[in-house]
Amino acid sequence: MLFDFDAGVTTDSEVLGGKGAGLAHMTALGLPVPPGFTLTTEVCRHLMKTGEFPEGIWDEVAAAVSRLEQKTSRSFGSGPTPILLSVRSGAAESMPGMMDTVLNLGINDDVVKSLATWSGDEHFSWDAYRRFLQMYGDVVLGIEDERFQAILSDLRRERGAESDADLTATDLKLATEQFKAVIDEARPGELPTDPMDQLRRAITAVFESWNNKRAVEFRRIHGIPDEMGTACSVQMMVFGDLGEDSGTGVCFTRDPSTGESTGYGDYLPRAQGEDVVAGVRNTLTLDELADLQPACHAQLTQIMGDLEAHYRDMCDIEFTIEKGVLYILQARVGKRTAAASIRLAVAMENEGLIDRDTAVMRVAPESLEQLHRPRIDNGADRPVFVAGVAASPGAAIGVACFTADEAVRLVESGKPVILIRPETTPDDIHGMAAAEGILTSQGGKTSHAAVVARGMGKPAVTGASKLVVDVAKGIAASGDVDIREGDMITLDGTNGVAFAGEMELAEPEALPELEEFLSWADSIRTMGVRANADTAADASKARERGAEGIGLARTEHMFLGERLEIVQKIILSSDEAEKNEALNELERLQVEDFTGLLESMDGQPVVVRLLDPPLHEFLPSRLELEQEALRMVRAGRSIDSLHQMSDQVARWEETNPMLGLRGVRLGLIVPRLYQMQARAAAQAIERRLKAGGDPRMEIMIPLVSTVEELRRMREMVEQEMAEATSSSGIEIHVSVGTMIELPRAALTAGEIAETADFFSFGTNDLTQMTYGLSRDDAEGHFLRDYLEKGILETDPFQTIDERGVGRLISVATREGREANPDLTVGICGEHGGDPASIEFVRRLGLDYVSCSPPRIEGARLAAAQAEIKLRSVGS
Amino acid sequence: MLFDFDAGVTTDSEVLGGKGAGLAHMTALGLPVPPGFTLTTEVCRHLMKTGEFPEGIWDEVAAAVSRLEQKTSRSFGSGPTPILLSVRSGAAESMPGMMDTVLNLGINDDVVKSLATWSGDEHFSWDAYRRFLQMYGDVVLGIEDERFQAILSDLRRERGAESDADLTATDLKLATEQFKAVIDEARPGELPTDPMDQLRRAITAVFESWNNKRAVEFRRIHGIPDEMGTACSVQMMVFGDLGEDSGTGVCFTRDPSTGESTGYGDYLPRAQGEDVVAGVRNTLTLDELADLQPACHAQLTQIMGDLEAHYRDMCDIEFTIEKGVLYILQARVGKRTAAASIRLAVAMENEGLIDRDTAVMRVAPESLEQLHRPRIDNGADRPVFVAGVAASPGAAIGVACFTADEAVRLVESGKPVILIRPETTPDDIHGMAAAEGILTSQGGKTSHAAVVARGMGKPAVTGASKLVVDVAKGIAASGDVDIREGDMITLDGTNGVAFAGEMELAEPEALPELEEFLSWADSIRTMGVRANADTAADASKARERGAEGIGLARTEHMFLGERLEIVQKIILSSDEAEKNEALNELERLQVEDFTGLLESMDGQPVVVRLLDPPLHEFLPSRLELEQEALRMVRAGRSIDSLHQMSDQVARWEETNPMLGLRGVRLGLIVPRLYQMQARAAAQAIERRLKAGGDPRMEIMIPLVSTVEELRRMREMVEQEMAEATSSSGIEIHVSVGTMIELPRAALTAGEIAETADFFSFGTNDLTQMTYGLSRDDAEGHFLRDYLEKGILETDPFQTIDERGVGRLISVATREGREANPDLTVGICGEHGGDPASIEFVRRLGLDYVSCSPPRIEGARLAAAQAEIKLRSVGS
Repeated sequence: MLFDFDAGVTTDSEVLGGKGAGLAHMTALGLPVPPGFTLTTEVCRHLMKTGEFPEGIWDEVAAAVSRLEQKTSRSFGSGPTPILLSVRSGAAESMPGMMDTVLNLGINDDVVKSLATWSGDEHFSWDAYRRFLQMYGDVVLGIEDERFQAILSDLRRERGAESDADLTATDLKLATEQFKAVIDEARPGELPTDPMDQLRRAITAVFESWNNKRAVEFRRIHGIPDEMGTACSVQMMVFGDLGEDSGTGVCFTRDPSTGESTGYGDYLPRAQGEDVVAGVRNTLTLDELADLQPACHAQLTQIMGDLEAHYRDMCDIEFTIEKGVLYILQARVGKRTAAASIRLAVAMENEGLIDRDTAVMRVAPESLEQLHRPRIDNGADRPVFVAGVAASPGAAIGVACFTADEAVRLVESGKPVILIRPETTPDDIHGMAAAEGILTSQGGKTSHAAVVARGMGKPAVTGASKLVVDVAKGIAASGDVDIREGDMITLDGTNGVAFAGEMELAEPEALPELEEFLSWADSIRTMGVRANADTAADASKARERGAEGIGLARTEHMFLGERLEIVQKIILSSDEAEKNEALNELERLQVEDFTGLLESMDGQPVVVRLLDPPLHEFLPSRLELEQEALRMVRAGRSIDSLHQMSDQVARWEETNPMLGLRGVRLGLIVPRLYQMQARAAAQAIERRLKAGGDPRMEIMIPLVSTVEELRRMREMVEQEMAEATSSSGIEIHVSVGTMIELPRAALTAGEIAETADFFSFGTNDLTQMTYGLSRDDAEGHFLRDYLEKGILETDPFQTIDERGVGRLISVATREGREANPDLTVGICGEHGGDPASIEFVRRLGLDYVSCSPPRIEGARLAAAQAEIKLRSVGS
Repeated sequence: MLFDFDAGVTTDSEVLGGKGAGLAHMTALGLPVPPGFTLTTEVCRHLMKTGEFPEGIWDEVAAAVSRLEQKTSRSFGSGPTPILLSVRSGAAESMPGMMDTVLNLGINDDVVKSLATWSGDEHFSWDAYRRFLQMYGDVVLGIEDERFQAILSDLRRERGAESDADLTATDLKLATEQFKAVIDEARPGELPTDPMDQLRRAITAVFESWNNKRAVEFRRIHGIPDEMGTACSVQMMVFGDLGEDSGTGVCFTRDPSTGESTGYGDYLPRAQGEDVVAGVRNTLTLDELADLQPACHAQLTQIMGDLEAHYRDMCDIEFTIEKGVLYILQARVGKRTAAASIRLAVAMENEGLIDRDTAVMRVAPESLEQLHRPRIDNGADRPVFVAGVAASPGAAIGVACFTADEAVRLVESGKPVILIRPETTPDDIHGMAAAEGILTSQGGKTSHAAVVARGMGKPAVTGASKLVVDVAKGIAASGDVDIREGDMITLDGTNGVAFAGEMELAEPEALPELEEFLSWADSIRTMGVRANADTAADASKARERGAEGIGLARTEHMFLGERLEIVQKIILSSDEAEKNEALNELERLQVEDFTGLLESMDGQPVVVRLLDPPLHEFLPSRLELEQEALRMVRAGRSIDSLHQMSDQVARWEETNPMLGLRGVRLGLIVPRLYQMQARAAAQAIERRLKAGGDPRMEIMIPLVSTVEELRRMREMVEQEMAEATSSSGIEIHVSVGTMIELPRAALTAGEIAETADFFSFGTNDLTQMTYGLSRDDAEGHFLRDYLEKGILETDPFQTIDERGVGRLISVATREGREANPDLTVGICGEHGGDPASIEFVRRLGLDYVSCSPPRIEGARLAAAQAEIKLRSVGS
């Protein structure tokens, strides 16, 4: 239940949490870590389950504090050389800033005096006391921090002080008294003077913070299970604010933003660690630290090298220098941008630090999309609004927005948002998740805003120090330019600048290491990766990204835009000649569409799905027509034609269109559109063959629920194609398959496979039907509630629900292959680009995944990672 | 491929068809059957599959004809005593009148003369020739029968003849010449004079008639598979029209309408068999036959007894008397009304003719509903419109309609229809299926209209000879009363009368044998039968019919009617106090509802399903509001309140409500309604306990897709119920279970069962989700097309789709029981009353079925039959 850092029993982060494991680990490595101990995650789980702490835990804590006193020859809560403690949370999975921390704990009216004597710095000791009261009041007692801040700012104003550092020890003593009064008034009798009491209550607060709102939200976003629990580490404070030869900093062993192989860090003299992360003052570089404290810098450099060799990865290190002595407070594998992760993986593999499988496992597949984030095209021509730190690369455009809640609201209403804050805190996390990009006036590359934005893969510019952000008024001012809430703003996170208005975007520069890295993934993976693409342009782009064919071309997308009028004529015209003419017109266009796709993917399979949606999707709704009618009546105009249209539309409207006359049903009941598509497909193939191409079209029939539907449709399609090409004498062969997107298709896959050349799982619809859940109606509505309340752990539309939907996929794959050993089986829903889902379908032995072009590279990588994991399970 | 009737090889109706098997059977029994042979169903299947007859079949036919000539010492197509043949279809399952027949075959210009000499009746021989040409022209060559009829009616008019019998031989010879001219003009060269050619072509036509439209439609209605094929029997003609000592008739060994144990028959002297079935002339009774031909009558009576003893069932016999010699042409188990089937089963069991299991198997479960068909209440007070034959019992009310197609159209538009025809033919079958009842001016109890109506369980009055039906004008006249198309008319099929206008209906008289019969079923079955009932009145009625509890009380039905206003307030009111008041009001009403249900079903389980549909079902749609707005604007009134309402409604409207915010989702997201229902349930139980009752309520949570939903909802329900009853000190125990109606629930049933006390399969929704098919949108629309085209063999909303939906039910039952051996498992969709589905779920071992009150008795019987079948498979 509790281990000293130097216990040497375990460094398992499931037990000690990431932070505790790191401290134990670093201690074992012989690094200069202030001593302490960790209460394990089991304590947290026990507390969550029973509402009480495990028996005997407080005796263990007291004993651990005694050991700490012995090790340091100092004492907690008394004596001439008092120890103060930090009490920090730390789960197995990193949740930066989400849970609570109490620092400078173990201080009271007596201890503050000993501390002054020990440090020779009364300003420091009252500042420590003040910091403790403020943090304890906020974190443990739940008193709003603003009340303490107000006292300090009143004092600063009275004293004419610019910052707290300019206040005197007497001022701080006064502040301390006032803080105590605030606490006594808000939570009378709840401020223990006994340091041991303080410790127990702080530990309790830290464990309870596992279930605070932002932590729960964070876990939901990052898919961390609620049952894990956090550990709690208690450590002797070392003070970066103990004079000029003290300070605190954060460093990375290589650049987390670019992946360059040079160390990178921020150092803040005379400060406690929180000050660096919050980005409240501007920091020094590691080179500047070398000038100030050469010995410490040399020692740090040595440690950085040792840690990287040890972890075989880029590390993120927090350190403090107390009166010229270096302490390491935290070291862990550092977060990085997508580009940096690839560059680091490739560099480390080349250096021989890691093997190729490890390199491939190092990069998060979903991060690869970031590499293709557009960059600002016309940046050179336009005046910069404000410049700051290039905290997270990429360009983002959106409307200016000043609070997290408002950002969420705007995004839900369909507007892209740039979140502008003086600095961000964990309370802003939902707004940052919603925003396109983040702009702050404070903080460097290691600030909260920067770290979180990089983690989310969102462009960010931080520390734009000329920016004045007035959250209340909704104005961000730089020079004489004001950006107001709702104004468009463009961020260039790569170059660390922002522009007023909407800039043009262009393709980003290629990352040189990407090709080599992906070639490693390709050599490992066994599963194919195709693209969902509906146009020749998309197909070409997908091929550039490595797509090995088209897994899904949605023909209905070819019916929209200016063609809508033609389609409406086909549906609504009562004049048979007009209808046929429109149909012929559409056929000519479809031949062009298909020819383009086949040309772009020459030599690769191109799966064309025949028309899927219900026909009324191409018509206005009756509601729209009634609304229009009302407008026209008010304008004194006739509505006869509208009502005629309404009658025609009524024939097609459905109560549950998702479950209505669409897909193969449409093909069988209103065959002319499907027949047209089959003819057009045949002509396109013929055209490509005549041009010397290698067209490999596959026809996919959607929404099949019985083998009989597929049998009849296959017959119709093959007959139409044969007729369409009969005059040329060219014989074409096309494989015909079906989407498996209805539970019944999966359950009777054995029958269906006998008539199908291929299956492609349409996991979007399959998920909708299996859950009985309309994505249109649920997403952003009760599905969000379900996720927030934890009724659903993950969004089944993002990641395949293995137990329900996945079981159907598994059954259908097995029984389909049993019935037809030549059956090709793929997946073409949105899940085809989701790494967890890719891993799942690889385990089932699917032949390929198909996803949208931006996700192709991630899918190639995920398929390789799935292969590596499968191998390691197998061995 | 071909067997003589006396071959003695097989009497399997799958091989010989029902008619062929019957002829072989009767021949083997030593009955006087005219000789002949049967081409097997295999010939038909071969023809359907390959488009060609099996090799050597025509040689076999020729050899069979030779054997026939030897047996009879007569000759086919030549010689002084020529044989004529009948060529008839006959499938394993009876399809009366659906397929083709050619009679009097083997005649030409030479044979007609020999026939005249042999019979000594030139009128007869030319009439035979005329009949052959007419039938061959119609059936084999597809020439409209009207063209032949026109020639005959012209002749009759010229000669002043009332019927064909009044025409002379010369007239008939003239008609024959004109018929030949019609055929030669319509299908030149296609009338063979060689009798063997005639035979081959007639056999071909009979086999091909398996796939004619009405046969396909009939098979669809009766669930007969298309693959079975028909056999074709060729038999020597015997002539009922060969003088006064000849005739033809149909008889039943007991009364097919009432089940009384007295024989019943119709005899028509000097006629061919088709004349009786068509009901063109009025017939004699069996008693009248005894007077005319006592020897034949005695022989027939003997044969009736023998056949009933042999078949151990009531038989339907066709016979012909040729010059005083009795021939049996067909004998089979006779069709009967529901009441007759029960009376016959009970009587025969009492007589020791059949055992109890056989008696139980004899009655079609779906027919029991007919017993509760209402009867006319005020018939004695009102003038009869017309009287006829009580052909099929029961009362029916609808609008008068004169063609089958129009009947279908009217029924689709929501109007009940009475189909009025001079007589019906197989071409009217779809109209009869759509109608509430049938009225004809011609034909007796054995006419087409009577037989088909009884088969369909529809009331019919036939042979209303005073009725003049003018189909073209849409008028049915009797005396000085005209009923015109669209007028209301009431049929009393029990008493054989019709009334103009709409009569009052009353409960039917009880069938005395029913109780005994159902007690047999109850003693056999092991599966429970509950009712779907939402009101105390329905529950009482269900209990009377034998329901052992309520399997589904749909609480949403309690929200409609005058309560709708309260419900709308709960949903829409922005005034919290008003909302709460409405909620309290609804709670009070629900307590009454639940108390009533528990009282009616005291001591039996009552499964109450919490609110299932989406809330917008209780609101007007935006489309309706817009339409209303348009009306108001045109009337110059303000529409502000409508637009306000529209905005509120918009919040709730969904694209796919079936897949939206409903069921448990609603309970979790908008909990107040579910909480109210739980409280009301608890109070109702408490009230019944205080009254000394034995309330056994079970709470059912609908639309569960994950165990977590059920877990939370169960907790909430149990908590609300405990709170609602905490003041009384009475502790109540309620089991909580879930509907399994989403594929995911079935697929994860093992998890869900751990939190559920019972499962009830909601097979309506489960079918919708598994097929991805909205019943609202599909039924009467493309689902009908699917059934008509044979894409679906049966309607999955009528009978459980065993391979898809059934597989889910099977998996869920097995895995649910594995996880929770105490789990009760039932079914409460519409399938719970469908005999085939009942048999299926009995095989899976379900504990009970639940169905609507009218289907309870049928379900009890079906459960017994399922048990008997299961036993016979087991043994």
